[in-house]
Amino acid sequence: MDVVLGIDIGGTSSKLGLVQADGSIIAKRSVDTKRCKNEEAFFACLFEEIELFLEQHRANYHCEGIGIGAPSCDEQAGVLEKAANFPFADSVPILRLFQDHFGLPVYLTKDGNAATLGEARYGAGQYIKNFVLVTLGTGIGGGLFLNGRLVKGNNGWAGEFGHIIVEPDGRPCGCGRRGCLEAYASATGLRRTVLQRLTQGDEGSILRRLAASELEAKDVYLAAKMGDTLSLEVFDGVGRRLGLALANLAATFDPQAFFLAGGLAAAEEVLLTPVRKYFEAFVLPQLRGRISIETSGLRLNEAAIAGAASLVWHHKNLITTHDECK
Amino acid sequence: MDVVLGIDIGGTSSKLGLVQADGSIIAKRSVDTKRCKNEEAFFACLFEEIELFLEQHRANYHCEGIGIGAPSCDEQAGVLEKAANFPFADSVPILRLFQDHFGLPVYLTKDGNAATLGEARYGAGQYIKNFVLVTLGTGIGGGLFLNGRLVKGNNGWAGEFGHIIVEPDGRPCGCGRRGCLEAYASATGLRRTVLQRLTQGDEGSILRRLAASELEAKDVYLAAKMGDTLSLEVFDGVGRRLGLALANLAATFDPQAFFLAGGLAAAEEVLLTPVRKYFEAFVLPQLRGRISIETSGLRLNEAAIAGAASLVWHHKNLITTHDECK
Repeated sequence: MDVVLGIDIGGTSSKLGLVQADGSIIAKRSVDTKRCKNEEAFFACLFEEIELFLEQHRANYHCEGIGIGAPSCDEQAGVLEKAANFPFADSVPILRLFQDHFGLPVYLTKDGNAATLGEARYGAGQYIKNFVLVTLGTGIGGGLFLNGRLVKGNNGWAGEFGHIIVEPDGRPCGCGRRGCLEAYASATGLRRTVLQRLTQGDEGSILRRLAASELEAKDVYLAAKMGDTLSLEVFDGVGRRLGLALANLAATFDPQAFFLAGGLAAAEEVLLTPVRKYFEAFVLPQLRGRISIETSGLRLNEAAIAGAASLVWHHKNLITTHDECK
Repeated sequence: MDVVLGIDIGGTSSKLGLVQADGSIIAKRSVDTKRCKNEEAFFACLFEEIELFLEQHRANYHCEGIGIGAPSCDEQAGVLEKAANFPFADSVPILRLFQDHFGLPVYLTKDGNAATLGEARYGAGQYIKNFVLVTLGTGIGGGLFLNGRLVKGNNGWAGEFGHIIVEPDGRPCGCGRRGCLEAYASATGLRRTVLQRLTQGDEGSILRRLAASELEAKDVYLAAKMGDTLSLEVFDGVGRRLGLALANLAATFDPQAFFLAGGLAAAEEVLLTPVRKYFEAFVLPQLRGRISIETSGLRLNEAAIAGAASLVWHHKNLITTHDECK
């Protein structure tokens, strides 16, 4: 059976999936890329894992090509450019590296666009013409699906919601500026806030049972679910910043829905409740109660993998859904 | 000769123009609507002025219809809804009022969309596929032209840039919330800042020669042009807020250009210099130097009048330029 390898390249881990033309993912694998010190180590590790993964399934499936979703990529040039959460040089020719190594057709798009295409082609976005997808992971990204089409922008940088500045003189961000949304409301930003509160104050929290180096965003939402006050307050703060940012995006293009994806979206109601509360408080009065905020209609991380793979299916004319971009 | 009446409804004044299908405006008139106390008085005054205007040109031109650009309008319902800078009831059926009074075909869109269509069909936007137009008048509005099409949003509220919240607990705004961009960077917001500085401090300024009630945004940019320090600082402050807002819009959809229109755009370099300075400081590093910020390619106020009129030409299939919206 024909499949496509879909890859979601991330700062903490990269996700692989074998994807059919209808979006079903028949095998998945996660590759830990956190400890790679530079791009050589990163791609050596990633390529080795991909080969093992493909080898494992070679008997049953034929791989037609590779679709990649990656942060900070210039898809026309095929390079990763100044990627904020990676130990990379300013410009990494990711498309050529993959083509040279695998000898297969390779297509590249921004991770946020990949997830947005996945949502539009296979997820909750199939039935609506205007939505915004926001990915909350190591960083924050996303994509715009407006008038039934993906909006990539003039240089391909549309959907960089993580780099909306929410505090002009705020926390330093990996991009070199200050006060970007992702410095506060990504999984990394949330962790930063928690560690700050744990070290600067002496309030009680079940999170104190964990070593700081072990503490992950997942622990914070599990603690919040168990009623831990500090964790709930931290999620309230994330919800305030995200709710405000989404309200400003609503005033900008009035979508029918926002979808939250990425690791932090697994927090579901712990995240959605404060986000919706602040969104409704901040949104233009004319839009109150009119825009839904939900987590992705696809399973965790699957939107980006399926969307990245769909680039190959689209180029082979094996799917004829939405127009990618004109 | 066939013409269309294009109207740009504004909080301070409304502008009328007789427009040909190629966008040329053969006659203009401005109607002062500042002193009208409610919608009855407003439309009585406006209709009377329109009749005089049409009567004056009846011998030479035949009016084919009316195209209206108006703030806070729900174009599907044909009503002005909670218009922030007008002494109006919550919902004013503007489309029906015009149809009943004039017995002509009437088309309605948001003022920001009208200006954006004007720029796209007749102005500097004719040659590019991705731009954002921002109108700086009594309020702030605008429109999005992405992938070669106007983006109206799900409920028609896209482009409400004036209601992007830039200070969560900031100045009250006419919309009932706090800290909206237009409370700072519209002509009204600029005037507010100037009056605040003149009354709270004792710094010298040539603006002190004017009575507070007479002082207009125009006086501030004339003073800035003459080197008045206070006026230059106020424009620097407006430039900082606008530059940041445009940088955040750039991270959101990466346009090729921003066009500034409306009364405040007449300040040209006095406004553009600080806006560009802060925009480049705040924008995503990958986009530095790549996005232009210019004033509208059409003469002052003409984008909105011509764009509003183009709705009628478009519906008569007499122009076949860009797709308005799908």
